Amino acid sequence: MRAGELARLLDGRLEGEEVELSGVAPLETAGSGELAFLREPGRAGELLHTRAGAVLVPEDLTADEKVSTSLIRVKDPYAALRRVLEHFHPETAPEPGVHPTAVVAPGAELDPTVSVGPWAVVESGAQVGAGSVIGAGVFLGRGCSLGSDCRIHPGVVVYADSVIGDRVEILANAVIGSDGFGHSVEDGTFRKIPHVGRVVLEDDVLVGAGTTIDRATLGETRILAGTKLDNLVMVAHNCRLGPHSAVAAQAGFAGSTIVGAGVQIGGQAGFAGHLTVGDGAVVGAQSGVIKDVAPNTFVWGFPARLHKETLQTMANTARVPEVRRRLKEIEARVRMLEEGRSPERDSQRGE
Amino acid sequence: MRAGELARLLDGRLEGEEVELSGVAPLETAGSGELAFLREPGRAGELLHTRAGAVLVPEDLTADEKVSTSLIRVKDPYAALRRVLEHFHPETAPEPGVHPTAVVAPGAELDPTVSVGPWAVVESGAQVGAGSVIGAGVFLGRGCSLGSDCRIHPGVVVYADSVIGDRVEILANAVIGSDGFGHSVEDGTFRKIPHVGRVVLEDDVLVGAGTTIDRATLGETRILAGTKLDNLVMVAHNCRLGPHSAVAAQAGFAGSTIVGAGVQIGGQAGFAGHLTVGDGAVVGAQSGVIKDVAPNTFVWGFPARLHKETLQTMANTARVPEVRRRLKEIEARVRMLEEGRSPERDSQRGE
Amino acid sequence: MRAGELARLLDGRLEGEEVELSGVAPLETAGSGELAFLREPGRAGELLHTRAGAVLVPEDLTADEKVSTSLIRVKDPYAALRRVLEHFHPETAPEPGVHPTAVVAPGAELDPTVSVGPWAVVESGAQVGAGSVIGAGVFLGRGCSLGSDCRIHPGVVVYADSVIGDRVEILANAVIGSDGFGHSVEDGTFRKIPHVGRVVLEDDVLVGAGTTIDRATLGETRILAGTKLDNLVMVAHNCRLGPHSAVAAQAGFAGSTIVGAGVQIGGQAGFAGHLTVGDGAVVGAQSGVIKDVAPNTFVWGFPARLHKETLQTMANTARVPEVRRRLKEIEARVRMLEEGRSPERDSQRGE
Repeated sequence: MRAGELARLLDGRLEGEEVELSGVAPLETAGSGELAFLREPGRAGELLHTRAGAVLVPEDLTADEKVSTSLIRVKDPYAALRRVLEHFHPETAPEPGVHPTAVVAPGAELDPTVSVGPWAVVESGAQVGAGSVIGAGVFLGRGCSLGSDCRIHPGVVVYADSVIGDRVEILANAVIGSDGFGHSVEDGTFRKIPHVGRVVLEDDVLVGAGTTIDRATLGETRILAGTKLDNLVMVAHNCRLGPHSAVAAQAGFAGSTIVGAGVQIGGQAGFAGHLTVGDGAVVGAQSGVIKDVAPNTFVWGFPARLHKETLQTMANTARVPEVRRRLKEIEARVRMLEEGRSPERDSQRGE
Repeated sequence: MRAGELARLLDGRLEGEEVELSGVAPLETAGSGELAFLREPGRAGELLHTRAGAVLVPEDLTADEKVSTSLIRVKDPYAALRRVLEHFHPETAPEPGVHPTAVVAPGAELDPTVSVGPWAVVESGAQVGAGSVIGAGVFLGRGCSLGSDCRIHPGVVVYADSVIGDRVEILANAVIGSDGFGHSVEDGTFRKIPHVGRVVLEDDVLVGAGTTIDRATLGETRILAGTKLDNLVMVAHNCRLGPHSAVAAQAGFAGSTIVGAGVQIGGQAGFAGHLTVGDGAVVGAQSGVIKDVAPNTFVWGFPARLHKETLQTMANTARVPEVRRRLKEIEARVRMLEEGRSPERDSQRGE
Repeated sequence: MRAGELARLLDGRLEGEEVELSGVAPLETAGSGELAFLREPGRAGELLHTRAGAVLVPEDLTADEKVSTSLIRVKDPYAALRRVLEHFHPETAPEPGVHPTAVVAPGAELDPTVSVGPWAVVESGAQVGAGSVIGAGVFLGRGCSLGSDCRIHPGVVVYADSVIGDRVEILANAVIGSDGFGHSVEDGTFRKIPHVGRVVLEDDVLVGAGTTIDRATLGETRILAGTKLDNLVMVAHNCRLGPHSAVAAQAGFAGSTIVGAGVQIGGQAGFAGHLTVGDGAVVGAQSGVIKDVAPNTFVWGFPARLHKETLQTMANTARVPEVRRRLKEIEARVRMLEEGRSPERDSQRGE
């Protein structure tokens, strides 16, 4: 595809020579027939060194006049990259049909357009909607329901009774609907509470590789529409996350925590149970959240507080040595006053 | 079942109208034919809004006189919930027998009452006791031994020579007996130490989804009776945890750490190697434990110290701004004294 | 094998009686026919209590004269242990050949010496080199390439186009090449960026159980030669780690982070994206790394700073109570000076 054509397609503007593009590559390694991508204005200097045929850049980027590569200026280079990649790398869904080695129970209802990979197990009562792809070795438990156009990657385990919407994607070896971690203590030993609730993943949810989402004790654990979970995230029983929130890798939620709409959560952040995180909040990486987070606030730290308070605390701590030095000085001056001396006279005496 | 009958069964007391109950549901969503559950006295106000037919509550709960739902007062509502859920939702174990697609090695010894799911692999020398259920796609390595009434969920990998007791439950995609992370450094490169020890899971142990327990270098990694591990926990080689301890999700133990009896460990807590955590200790979530923990103490923080010390440290840090303000004031007053002035006279001059 | 023979083999020196050794066991449990191992000079006292036939110790260890067990003094006991264990426990690789239940696509190229376990799936275009072992239930996606003598353990998922070198070992249920976590925000919803890059694991890389390594958006995510990752580690898209670095369990790397050669990273450490960690650096457990780490430095803490600075900060915080006590005292003394009194006179008056 020619750069000019691409620019038009992306509602952008080509600056520089027309060039034929056959693929997309990182700025550092792209060749003269490839499109690259630059998102951060602060990295504009790298345009001087790239050999890319053309580069997607923000429309208002200030580029050095010595830049010789063609630029395609667009409003949102990341969104443009998405469209370009979808063009150059269209998804290759497997053919519909059930692999002969898959074990599909008689009572399961699969749309004829569904693809089921080798060694998959679909138990009785499970339903899978049009265009969904069930990968190799996937386990779908009794009475699960999947919508249309889902992508369930190899090794995923979906326990019985889980309800999954349309266009949900679950990456390899994730686990949906495992029993929650709840035990009564009776005569000094733990007795497991049966977890008879379920997991609901609404439309357009993404679940990362190795992530685990526990079923509810009673009722449901629910991931709301459009919410994206990265790899190795842990969602405990009865949580409710989203809609349209994003959770980075290795974050963990204890039981019954509620996270609102449009929330962004950093990697390795942890949440105590029974908390509420308000809409639009941002939680920094590795935060330890032990109380509610107000909407549209940015919290960070251990324990998590407003980001600016955490920075202030760190600054305060750093000032303790200065405080001690000043305190020592003032103690000396007070001693001199008590002894009837003045610092001026002392310094004249060479002290 | 009628509420009065249930109350008798649970050694409890029915307060309010008799009612027929057909299931259990959360307090917020339960209908008039359903039993709900309230554990925390602080949430007693919610009884005014529920439509539940009856609610399990602590025997000494003070409820508003306007509460119209029936209450079943019991000593331990959580233990009562367990018994009720077991009554309404009895476990439906699969039929005994080996699925035709499972690959069971000639030398494996399975009790006739064992159930083995599709695509499971049981290698030679493995033994599985009466009533155990091996899920779909489970891998049991050479010479593994499982007791009776175990539940090994889909996708679990149990490496060779692991020893598993009775009533052990391992949730989906967990890994038991992987090689420990130990390397000698020779000529600047890592050389893997063969890990020839094993993993032992004693009776009534629970292992959460995605959790990994490494085999010992020599000897064993042992989880003692009744200990419960949540999801995505990491137990390194030669650790020894329990008995009757509980470890929340994403906690991690470096090599050779010993955790005693009845210990409670919060989510995302981390333990350096070769530590001892005493019986009855409590370790708060996200703690970084870098030295031994005394029995029956509550530690928290990074690094972990006695909980009250960590709170004290946080309070101290918060006081630094106040300290700086007072220090500035005292410096000004000392300067005045040194210059022969007094604050009273200064303030009279309008300063 | 006799202890003297073993000492010669290990370039070591036998001290004490000759003894026949039939295996290796931990110092605490070894019997008279077993070899044990002691690495840390601080634990030398334990030699008094062991019943081991012989113990591998550092060549310059000072042992109590009452120690009666034979000692094999070697330069590096851990490296010696490796050699001994390899001798007593040689790896038992499975027979070459493809298990009849494995699904190998027509276009896949497997060396005749490769072993493929039950229920494995090898998609078209995949290549596997001589002597490699593909475990039960492993999934190798389209166009993957594996070198020789690899060990891919049960349940591992390797996504399409991954490139894996020689002698790479991947433990159970790890995931290689899952899509990175990148979304553009368009009209208030997340749109997934297609991840068309790949993962490259160079020679002698180890990937722990349950670890996930995401493919690059463009270009590659690369683990360089000899680098070892423990269990449940998360490596995001476009990271580059190694060579010859070690990453302990549950550590996590956000996108595009670069870690140099010979770096040691503690468990549960987290790295923000687009950082550089210099060669030879050491990052303590649970650190939160939010800026570049200089080569050959030791950082620790949240956020990570030089280890000694973090210790200093902790010490400073601990001194705040002392500062407040001294400040209160000095305020009292200044008040007395302002009032024209002296502490001596006050104390005479009994105040």
